[in-house]
Amino acid sequence: MTIKKGNLISFSGGNQGQWIVRSMKTLSGNAIEPVSRIEITKESQLPADAKWTFNAFISNLRYTTRKEKTELDQGSKPLGIESNNYAALIPIKKSDEWWKMTQDERRKIFEEDSRHIALSLDYLPFISRQLHHCRDLGEHFDFLTWFEFSSAHEDKFDALVQMLRETKEWDYVIGEIDIRLHRS
Amino acid sequence: MTIKKGNLISFSGGNQGQWIVRSMKTLSGNAIEPVSRIEITKESQLPADAKWTFNAFISNLRYTTRKEKTELDQGSKPLGIESNNYAALIPIKKSDEWWKMTQDERRKIFEEDSRHIALSLDYLPFISRQLHHCRDLGEHFDFLTWFEFSSAHEDKFDALVQMLRETKEWDYVIGEIDIRLHRS
Repeated sequence: MTIKKGNLISFSGGNQGQWIVRSMKTLSGNAIEPVSRIEITKESQLPADAKWTFNAFISNLRYTTRKEKTELDQGSKPLGIESNNYAALIPIKKSDEWWKMTQDERRKIFEEDSRHIALSLDYLPFISRQLHHCRDLGEHFDFLTWFEFSSAHEDKFDALVQMLRETKEWDYVIGEIDIRLHRS
Repeated sequence: MTIKKGNLISFSGGNQGQWIVRSMKTLSGNAIEPVSRIEITKESQLPADAKWTFNAFISNLRYTTRKEKTELDQGSKPLGIESNNYAALIPIKKSDEWWKMTQDERRKIFEEDSRHIALSLDYLPFISRQLHHCRDLGEHFDFLTWFEFSSAHEDKFDALVQMLRETKEWDYVIGEIDIRLHRS
């Protein structure tokens, strides 16, 4: 059963691709096979040597309010800025407990308790980002989070992910692998 | 590019399948090819004669609050009740304007303005239902809504869909086909 290719984006780990792996760190859940490069593709043609491939799609906003979106948009920079020579791919899996919650319960933990959006705002000028969804595809991970930033600002990225990992939202994260990359 | 089959459900229109088409009515958007039966499958093996196939997945709740879910669960009946000899498949497509809205804006129209959940509550004892999502798969429609009920209660189903079609939420519906079926 195939789905239309245009909507999917694939991250393939192997020994080819535009992003060179600097480090892979399993923070929770099972590790994945180490690779030297990651290829990102919207084509059905995956690299022949891939050790793993994660498929995902970009979707509509699930929690963000209009006020928050306005603030986020003001600070956000697009992907693909040449001086952002570093990137991070962080696949995330949340627990069944998270997914059984209703929208209001998840929103409360996400923002009112954990301030996911509020904490991120200060970092937008330095860190470009894109969320990809994959739980509904039956993938192991629920999200593939993607960030691009300059090597000069990796300390800021470290500070951001460290803050998020200490929030209540992260009590529901049962799989997380922090893959750091640089542009080839 | 294939996705894991277990998560997908396919609705194929043709001349085979467990559901016999009684009528097909295009309420907005383009019509689809008339068919005599619909096959619902979770397998990759689709009926060879299918004139069209819609793929979708069941997902987590997107708008429902805990209070609403408790009320909904109390009244809901499962699919597959033998005396529910009638069904309806209603594919729905919403406008770009809808999808560009933030979560709070869509929720307000869905429930505070349109009372989608509140209006539906009275009908739960008579109408079993399942929502399937497909926008993120790049399908033409955004949702495949599925309902099962007894032929004795089709007037109640007509009343429910008529009420919903008069709500503000339906101002954003740009494709809708009402396919009525009976169990073979």
